[in-house]
Amino acid sequence: MYVPLVLTTFLDRAAELYGGKTAAVDGERTVTYGELQYRVNQLSNGLKALNIKKGDKVAYLSPNAVEMLEGFYGVYQLGAVMTPLNTRLTAEDYEFILNHSESKVLFADKTLFKQLEPILGNLTSIETIILHGEEADTKTAIGYENWLSGFDGKWFDRVEVDEHDIASLLYTSGTTGNPKGVLLTHRSNYLHALSTMHHLRIRENDKMLHVLPMFHVNGWGSPFYYTANGVTQVMQRKIDPESIFNNIKKHKISILHMAPTVLNMLLEYYHLHKEECRMDHHVRIVVAGSAPPPAFIEMTENELGWEFIHVYGMTEISPLVTTSQITSNDEHLPVKEQQRLKSKTGYSLIGSEVKVVNEAYEEVEKNGTAVGEIVVRSNNVMEGYFKNPEATAETIQHGWLHTGDMAVVFDNGYIEIVDRKKDVIISGGENISSIEVEGYLYQHPDIVETAVVALPHEKWGEIPHAVVVKREGSSLTEEDVIAYAREKMAHFKAPKSINFVKELPKTASGKIQKVQLRKQLWNDSDKLVN
Amino acid sequence: MYVPLVLTTFLDRAAELYGGKTAAVDGERTVTYGELQYRVNQLSNGLKALNIKKGDKVAYLSPNAVEMLEGFYGVYQLGAVMTPLNTRLTAEDYEFILNHSESKVLFADKTLFKQLEPILGNLTSIETIILHGEEADTKTAIGYENWLSGFDGKWFDRVEVDEHDIASLLYTSGTTGNPKGVLLTHRSNYLHALSTMHHLRIRENDKMLHVLPMFHVNGWGSPFYYTANGVTQVMQRKIDPESIFNNIKKHKISILHMAPTVLNMLLEYYHLHKEECRMDHHVRIVVAGSAPPPAFIEMTENELGWEFIHVYGMTEISPLVTTSQITSNDEHLPVKEQQRLKSKTGYSLIGSEVKVVNEAYEEVEKNGTAVGEIVVRSNNVMEGYFKNPEATAETIQHGWLHTGDMAVVFDNGYIEIVDRKKDVIISGGENISSIEVEGYLYQHPDIVETAVVALPHEKWGEIPHAVVVKREGSSLTEEDVIAYAREKMAHFKAPKSINFVKELPKTASGKIQKVQLRKQLWNDSDKLVN
Ligand SMILES: Nc1ncnc2c1ncn2[C@@H]1O[C@H](COP(=O)(O)OP(=O)(O)OP(=O)(O)O)[C@@H](O)[C@H]1O
Ligand SMILES: Nc1ncnc2c1ncn2[C@@H]1O[C@H](COP(=O)(O)OP(=O)(O)OP(=O)(O)O)[C@@H](O)[C@H]1O
Ligand SMILES: [Mg+2]
Ligand SMILES: [Mg+2]
Repeated sequence: MYVPLVLTTFLDRAAELYGGKTAAVDGERTVTYGELQYRVNQLSNGLKALNIKKGDKVAYLSPNAVEMLEGFYGVYQLGAVMTPLNTRLTAEDYEFILNHSESKVLFADKTLFKQLEPILGNLTSIETIILHGEEADTKTAIGYENWLSGFDGKWFDRVEVDEHDIASLLYTSGTTGNPKGVLLTHRSNYLHALSTMHHLRIRENDKMLHVLPMFHVNGWGSPFYYTANGVTQVMQRKIDPESIFNNIKKHKISILHMAPTVLNMLLEYYHLHKEECRMDHHVRIVVAGSAPPPAFIEMTENELGWEFIHVYGMTEISPLVTTSQITSNDEHLPVKEQQRLKSKTGYSLIGSEVKVVNEAYEEVEKNGTAVGEIVVRSNNVMEGYFKNPEATAETIQHGWLHTGDMAVVFDNGYIEIVDRKKDVIISGGENISSIEVEGYLYQHPDIVETAVVALPHEKWGEIPHAVVVKREGSSLTEEDVIAYAREKMAHFKAPKSINFVKELPKTASGKIQKVQLRKQLWNDSDKLVN
Repeated sequence: MYVPLVLTTFLDRAAELYGGKTAAVDGERTVTYGELQYRVNQLSNGLKALNIKKGDKVAYLSPNAVEMLEGFYGVYQLGAVMTPLNTRLTAEDYEFILNHSESKVLFADKTLFKQLEPILGNLTSIETIILHGEEADTKTAIGYENWLSGFDGKWFDRVEVDEHDIASLLYTSGTTGNPKGVLLTHRSNYLHALSTMHHLRIRENDKMLHVLPMFHVNGWGSPFYYTANGVTQVMQRKIDPESIFNNIKKHKISILHMAPTVLNMLLEYYHLHKEECRMDHHVRIVVAGSAPPPAFIEMTENELGWEFIHVYGMTEISPLVTTSQITSNDEHLPVKEQQRLKSKTGYSLIGSEVKVVNEAYEEVEKNGTAVGEIVVRSNNVMEGYFKNPEATAETIQHGWLHTGDMAVVFDNGYIEIVDRKKDVIISGGENISSIEVEGYLYQHPDIVETAVVALPHEKWGEIPHAVVVKREGSSLTEEDVIAYAREKMAHFKAPKSINFVKELPKTASGKIQKVQLRKQLWNDSDKLVN
């Protein structure tokens, strides 16, 4: 029997089995799964009244909030396409994405909406703007709660949706260039959810804290698999370590997702407030977005006492495809070695094929040194980039998605990303993994954050340069860091120059934008390289 | 990206990640996942040499054994259809199924093959017979190991298989009549596997004992999800409590599946050999096939100390669709009440919609008393019965599979099967659940096994009658049982007559064949009913 794999069935099950259970906590507000479904129906009826049809794009500019969670299901019930916006873009970016996506309705949190005001006149497809957190209508926009309350929540006459229909249009993080619009089907998100809930061991008595923004690949698909399991989802509207620790304690959070940079903030905070950060329950933290330095894993497990789960993926793949959770092959290893393994990218989740291939499309040798590109074959993989057939054709070739991530494979089958193709540093003909160099630097107690990028160099072609955020009050100098680096790693890998900054440029999903760093540095490179 | 959901990908992953790990233990033999894949390739190459093509049926008559496990994948690589035979049928049944299924090749365990000898001359489609456990060829058959060793195992050039292609042709248990041939697609088995591995919390460091026969709905799909996770699978060739307990201890088995009747044997054995049955590791036991009496759950958890996981399904649904594992809704309940909940049929697994409806197709009231039929909508559901469009049309109606199982629903959403449609006893206009009556009788310390069926009766239409296996040496009489019953339950439900037997008739999957009991009893009913 063919029953289309559509995402709305996840909420159906939760409302049926967990109708009276808290679905979402958002500050002082709580909403049960029954109430969530009611609001979702209201929203769908409202969108229908706005003439939203199957395939239409509905944009969301929202922090992690109940309104965002209900948005997914409200939009899907019409067969419409959820198009979340990164909350930290420029007005020009918003103009580009809203027009490029051809979104018809925009839901925006009232605190974020002002970012759009300069470009409201330039929007070519938006017909209606509705503000979350605003009761009554304003000059330019409709107040959400009033509007919502005008619609029936008991029932929505669903549009027929097939699993191959598009569910989401998600723009990539823009780490390496302009964000691209990724089209994901219901089937992709659904199968990703089934596999991910298994590997992350989601149980319905989990308590989940949405730290990772839901606009970012749907918070790694989290609104789907946590909902399917009837998990209580707590909304973290702002990334603020104190409030995150408070929420974990208050709500007995058992699982949360985040990028390494956010974890770094938590670890920094922890070092100053150990006592108040101590939890007396089990916490697992799921980390992806960039390679977590090995030191983070040790600190998380040995000091915070949380279980570290490292996963890897990209917007184009729904996103998760690997994990490095310890298998029975390696259970006997000492903890320290297990933690080294966890810092690697790991092995495929059930449902995805992940290979590392050279340019001739052959799998690289499993020797930990031969470098190739990670390619993925999976139902998780996107249909393509919206209105960008060239980029699609470049990315999906011969039935495999090319990640642009360069990696080695070890004899135990573990993959380890050494760098993004665009971030590899080529010095004197040798490839240097910026991730590896950063990993060493993070062991230095006075280095809070760092990014290693290539600087052009006459003799070597490129040389590694480190941009460093040092601990407050530290007297660390360029010479100190260079000396430390030369002690820790092969000399050709050690950064030849350093500059210190207060803060590194990051995407809203918490990635360091090396492309920005390079741009700045290359402009001033004369000054920097001796 | 569309990647067909086919079962062979599960073994691919295991061989890739767990190549050196033990895949199967079968007596003294162990086979790694790498070796398993090698043998599977040999088998596929062998079947190709026998001219087996996509869609051809390949029959298996085998206990739980390495040869059976490799059979699934070996057959699937050709796009052929696995057709396992129940090991405890009559020669006539085998003749019927082998001819009805149009199987071309038969693999049979040499110890079981003699059952077929009387009907070998009547087989209309079988072209080749290959004997497991036989090295060399015999007069009528080929010896498996010799034959297998003639084929390459490094590589098999796979036939293209789509997820909608048939993977298995499985004959039902024949509890209510003649077995019917159920056609299940790769997609059905694959999605069933993804959902089931999540709900059963399969981890790759599990150790699985195949107690439930793999011929029975593929052992509830177990060769797929345990393989996908790289779990070591130990083969239980014969149902023998001593050997089962030994295997659990020796291999540190963490999970096993079985029908309530087999569990009953284990519990009986346990009472006589408590010390040697004590395990110092966590064991979960997954039970389905018929309703486990509440007393079994208490004994399993309180005495054996194993975690009881109750699931429900049928061959037509791949098979599992519900579980009654305790949710956070009920975590606060005392253990005894939790165990009562576990004895119910439970709630839907992710991916399946399960409803209880009356004849007007409306959901019954959730009051624990209104009875309706369980209907299921799920990708797990079969394509239909092979060459039996009438039965298919009767079973799948309006897009729902009709299970023939009658149930009530409680206000917490839990479903409880009260009886098979065909087993309900209607006495004086009241419906009596034979399962409920049995549940009470099982609380009697001298009742080892019992089945309650309807006897025709002039005044009441039908009356409940209990067939009882009493504990050895017990002096229990008909009057004792009737008196006990009248104390425990409403008088109209209490059996009006009893007969004692040494053993109840059972299917090979361990179900009590009430249809047989009724047949016998109704013939002698004059003698029995006063
Ligand atoms: N566990 C990880 N280890 C290393 N890198 C990771 C990990 N998880 C994600 N990444 C990096 O993040 C990328 C996917 O990120 P995302 O889809 O958010 O957009 P982006 O690639 O950062 O932005 P853009 O494609 O717009 O430049 C991967 O291709 C990889 O480079
Ligand atoms: N947990 C359970 N509780 C009650 N009954 C169960 C449970 N699990 C399975 N069953 C019964 O088993 C049936 C499915 O069994 P199976 O597919 O093995 O064939 P069968 O129905 O016993 O045989 P046939 O259809 O040939 O008469 C269900 O329809 C249900 O009646
Ligand atoms: Mg990218
Ligand atoms: Mg049946």
